[in-house]
Amino acid sequence: MDNAYNVGLIRVVTIKEPEILNLHGTIIEKKFPQLNVVSKCIQDQDKGIHDQRTEDIAVPKIIELAKEWKDIDALIISCAGDPAVKELREQLAIPIVGAGESTALLSLRYGTKFGVLGITDEVPEAYNRILGDNIVGTCNVDGVTSTLDLQNELGRKKVIEKAMTLKDQGAQVISLACTGMSTIGIAKELEQICQIPVIDPVIAEGLIAYYECINGVK
Amino acid sequence: MDNAYNVGLIRVVTIKEPEILNLHGTIIEKKFPQLNVVSKCIQDQDKGIHDQRTEDIAVPKIIELAKEWKDIDALIISCAGDPAVKELREQLAIPIVGAGESTALLSLRYGTKFGVLGITDEVPEAYNRILGDNIVGTCNVDGVTSTLDLQNELGRKKVIEKAMTLKDQGAQVISLACTGMSTIGIAKELEQICQIPVIDPVIAEGLIAYYECINGVK
Repeated sequence: MDNAYNVGLIRVVTIKEPEILNLHGTIIEKKFPQLNVVSKCIQDQDKGIHDQRTEDIAVPKIIELAKEWKDIDALIISCAGDPAVKELREQLAIPIVGAGESTALLSLRYGTKFGVLGITDEVPEAYNRILGDNIVGTCNVDGVTSTLDLQNELGRKKVIEKAMTLKDQGAQVISLACTGMSTIGIAKELEQICQIPVIDPVIAEGLIAYYECINGVK
Repeated sequence: MDNAYNVGLIRVVTIKEPEILNLHGTIIEKKFPQLNVVSKCIQDQDKGIHDQRTEDIAVPKIIELAKEWKDIDALIISCAGDPAVKELREQLAIPIVGAGESTALLSLRYGTKFGVLGITDEVPEAYNRILGDNIVGTCNVDGVTSTLDLQNELGRKKVIEKAMTLKDQGAQVISLACTGMSTIGIAKELEQICQIPVIDPVIAEGLIAYYECINGVK
């Protein structure tokens, strides 16, 4: 296709199977056919990033992966914590897109009270910065502590229950705060059950990456 | 193209020449090839919307145009004041996209201090709601009171001067607050002169319309 853009995407969890590694990229390519997405992942973090410690050890790995990448128009860090996004913006000339900031921005389109639904006790930084005092409830899902816990029926059920709780607490929008929620493709199901908009982090990061690409001089 | 979406776009200024009427749609189609944009305009407002009075008389005309429109996946109100957007959301089942809210959202991606640059004394509602206390300077351009004043060299020069003033006042991002700025295609020029990101309202409304389309069930 004319005007196709090459986008790099970093998964912050170690994945060996190419199909799973490429899953976020595949979602983005389906929604944004002008983007060609190549995915890479960090090594030795089978459970990804799920607290400050795991983020701290991931950041230098993400920076190393990013700095050696050539010939991409934009780079997505496919994690709601936006790890290394700030550092990479200072070091690289291409646009750096974080899942968290993209999801939080887009959430503002749909309401004034936000249910941030992730797997961490703390709300990721960008959601706090952008949605701030308008966040209701807590971010975590009881019994779900890593992206792997999402990948079974019990994890899925707990996410649905949490979304309903956040709605009951006044959320007009569910802002998903873990890209593992995109991996299990739960946003549309939550929307149908809760009957409020649900923002999928991988689609949100794809949207902002697309904007960055079309806005370049290319 | 597969997955093409039909988007309606309402110009809030009376335009007889088809090429000028379609200008915002053409910009959007170029950046978002999956969108087919059809434009219509309100009647008897040669100077568009530029204050509360002209907005008040435009709103019922916009609602009338919108309600008779069939077979579109989303509707854009191509005006930074987002006239009739709230009313239409309550009355129509399709997504309604406003230029102002789209520009303000996207602006948050690029900084924490915003120079809102339009043609009105008052900052449009969505910019205030979304960017609030982080807006620096004033919205208006001295001597430019309607979208028509932008379409000559003097108007263009005044906009450039205003952007530089806003930057001097601390703006990290210029959030354009009149789609007439898109009509004269000044965003990229401002970016080059000011060396800070400039958000174009027509591209922003196109981006959000695209999101609404791909996010539907189609």
